[in-house]
Parts: sequence; structure tokens; C-alpha cells
Amino acid sequence: MRNIKMTIKYDGSRYKGFQRLKDNDMTIQGKIENVLSKMTNESIEIIGSGRTDMGVHANGQVANFKTDSELSIKKMHDYLYEYLPEDIVIINMEEVDDRFHSRYNAKSKIYLYKIDNNKYHDPFLRKYTTHVEKKLDLELMREASKYLIGEHDFTSFASSKSKKKSNIREIHSIEIKEHHNLVEIYVHGNGFLYNMVRIIVGALLDVGLHRKTPQDIKEMLEFKDRSKASDTAPSKGLILHKVNY
Amino acid sequence: MRNIKMTIKYDGSRYKGFQRLKDNDMTIQGKIENVLSKMTNESIEIIGSGRTDMGVHANGQVANFKTDSELSIKKMHDYLYEYLPEDIVIINMEEVDDRFHSRYNAKSKIYLYKIDNNKYHDPFLRKYTTHVEKKLDLELMREASKYLIGEHDFTSFASSKSKKKSNIREIHSIEIKEHHNLVEIYVHGNGFLYNMVRIIVGALLDVGLHRKTPQDIKEMLEFKDRSKASDTAPSKGLILHKVNY
Repeated sequence: MRNIKMTIKYDGSRYKGFQRLKDNDMTIQGKIENVLSKMTNESIEIIGSGRTDMGVHANGQVANFKTDSELSIKKMHDYLYEYLPEDIVIINMEEVDDRFHSRYNAKSKIYLYKIDNNKYHDPFLRKYTTHVEKKLDLELMREASKYLIGEHDFTSFASSKSKKKSNIREIHSIEIKEHHNLVEIYVHGNGFLYNMVRIIVGALLDVGLHRKTPQDIKEMLEFKDRSKASDTAPSKGLILHKVNY
Repeated sequence: MRNIKMTIKYDGSRYKGFQRLKDNDMTIQGKIENVLSKMTNESIEIIGSGRTDMGVHANGQVANFKTDSELSIKKMHDYLYEYLPEDIVIINMEEVDDRFHSRYNAKSKIYLYKIDNNKYHDPFLRKYTTHVEKKLDLELMREASKYLIGEHDFTSFASSKSKKKSNIREIHSIEIKEHHNLVEIYVHGNGFLYNMVRIIVGALLDVGLHRKTPQDIKEMLEFKDRSKASDTAPSKGLILHKVNY
């Protein structure tokens, strides 16, 4: 069987998340599997690098699937581009080694969180940013972010619904950029717990708005208790930016 | 009576255009008038600098209205921001001289047309750009645009539905910028006929795709015949960028 790897960009606004749900095809996975199954006359199942929640977007989600189809990669790519809805675009498609697995082989991921930090929100960015009216103190946010770098138990920064065996993860870097009041927070790590990026961003926003100090972030982490941390930032500002293999 | 000037940014995707239609409030003007009328308990009519068509956007549409309300500008602005839909944002509001008229006093306008010139369209920009897959020849487009600068009879570049007495207009400049395959065409002129910017862009796209030469644009203009010019470019790439007074 051939093993095909896809890089997917999507506007998640309309969807219930990446992962296919029973009896509901308003998921990214569902939409892609439907088109692929029609194309190949097989029942295709794609393996994503991980889930993204309802309303979360992607610049570079990765998924792979196995098929016996003899169609060329170009033909497959053209077919997907024609039949997928406009808000889901396969930006790269290639044949890979049989052993490649989008989830197991992912070495690290970069998430991007976008904040529209103007007095009034930008109507063109409203679905892809979280609007924060009050000017954020970016220097303080950068200082706070340093406490999260490295290997930590992120229990305080995971949804209490998270059911992973271990809550230890490593954050490689957190970069905070700003251009014309659009703030971009890049979080690079080896893996993420459920809602982890959104809770990290919630904490950084608390610091940027002077509701918490950088030192508070350090303590949040040490508490290992979700109830001690900040609120979860809205899904619409979150983008799965890149998956590294 | 007080005279209030507003600068309006909107995502026109959902609307039937700027101008209020009878029995249909899915217009920008209708939405704003409804909120203003509720706020003031008066029947407010706003005067826009001009119409924008169904699906066209604005970064800086200007409109003014008269009112006897004694509310502060800040209160009015906050009220509008709260009650207007998310895709219509008043970005500036100020009290102006009684004689100010958004349409009659407009000295010039800048329209912006955005083209996503990547092989696959960007899902996040799909409603605010026109996608052109084949690489555009921007140098040739810039050469062609020079023939349109200055005072001309733009009959070939106006919808045949246009009913203006004179089709003579002056284009001050056409600037074509490009950044990461996002092409931006800024058209600055003293006034525009119906569909004029979209037909100009249609002609420039024909040149950029080598379907027409820059010399053809010169001839289109001289023909003074709409049927001799290019197709009208889609509305979704067009943005009323700025109105100068």
C-alpha cells in the first residue's frame, strides 16, 4: 500500500474540530476522508498529527493515509483541491515511507496564537484573532513566558478533562512578536496537553494586562493544580502552525 | 443640529452592498442607520461617500449624519461598537462643521484590490482576495497601468449600467505592490464610474496573464466601448481603502 502525507491549512471557524465525530461530518478529518474515499473508491482513514478543537485553525496540520490507488500525487492533489470546501486547503502532498506515522513520528509542534490588540477589533481578522482592547505589556509577558520554558509538569496548564498518563512536557521556546498591534505568540514544544496552549496564553494575557505578575506564572506551574491557573483563551485565536518530524 | 462624521471599516461578504435597499436591511447603511435611530430615538439617515457593491469591503468608508442628540461622541461611538454586528466597525467618529457632506466634499478616493497569487488559495484570505493561480507578470501590469493615469474618458471601463452624464475621470496613480505572493493594487482617483476599479483590475489581470498587452489597454481606453474591455474582476477582492477630503 502507498502511504501519502498531506500538509493541511484550514479555517476552523465552521467546524467541530479536526477529529471525525460519529454521525457528524462537520469536522476537518470527516471532510477530507469523504473526498479521499470518493476519489479512491476505498474507505480511507486519515491519521492526523493530533486533534485541534472546535474553532481552532491550522497553517500546517499534517495527516497521512494508506491507499491502493494508483493515481499520481498530482491527480490526487488536484482532486482534493477541487472537491474540498474553500476553507480546507491541502498545501502539500507527497508519497512517504510506509513507516511514516503523522502522530507517532511528530518530534515537536509550533502553535501560534494571534491577538488583535487595537481599541476596536479588525472585522477582517475577527475570526482568526482574539481581540484585547487594553494595550498589552509585552515585555512583562516575555518575562513571564521564560518560566514556562523547559521540561515541567504542566498539570496547572491542562484542562481537567485531560487524561494523559503524564503531564510532563517540554516547551522549547515561546516567542512574542508584534506588528501594527497584531500580537503573535509562537509556542514550540515537544507535545501539548489538552487546552495547554490556550491556558498558557490565558496566563500570559493576565500578565500583559497586569492582573498577574510573571512570578505568579512560576507559582501557577508549581501548584500543579488547574484551578490555580488562568482562564483558557478563546479557540478562534489559535492556529496549529507547524508540525516537525 | 449636530453633524457627525464616521469612518467605517467593514467586511462586506454578508451584505448586499453599502446602500440601504427597501425592505432589506442586509446593507451596511441599513445596519448603521438602525443602530443610530435606536440610539437617538430619531429617524437617522446617513450619507455615505458613495456606494460599495454587494461583497465589496471597506477599510475607510466615510459617512455623516445629522442629529439633535446630546450624547457625547464617545458615548455614541461606544453604543455603535456594542450594537453593530462584528463585521462592521466604526473606527473613527467626530463632530464636524455643519456644511460637511461625505459625498459632495470627497476630493479623491483610494481603492485597493487584493489578489492571492499562490498556486492554492489561502483559506484565511478567501473572502478578501481574488485567487489567481498563475504567476502574474507585475512589471507588465505596471507598464499597462501607466496608460490609465491622468484624465480620460473611461467609458470602456464603466458598467454599461452606469448612468453618469460624463464618463471623464482622473486617475492620480495606480500602485502595484507584492509581498509573499499577495498582490495589492491601489487605485487613486478623483472619482469612479460604476464597476470602474473592477474593470481596470480585470484589464490589468489580462495583461499580467499575457492574454493582453499593455498597448491593448491603451486601445481599450480609446475605443470608449465597454464591450472592447476586459471582464469585471470579482467583488470580493475590492476594498474602499480611503476617502480624501
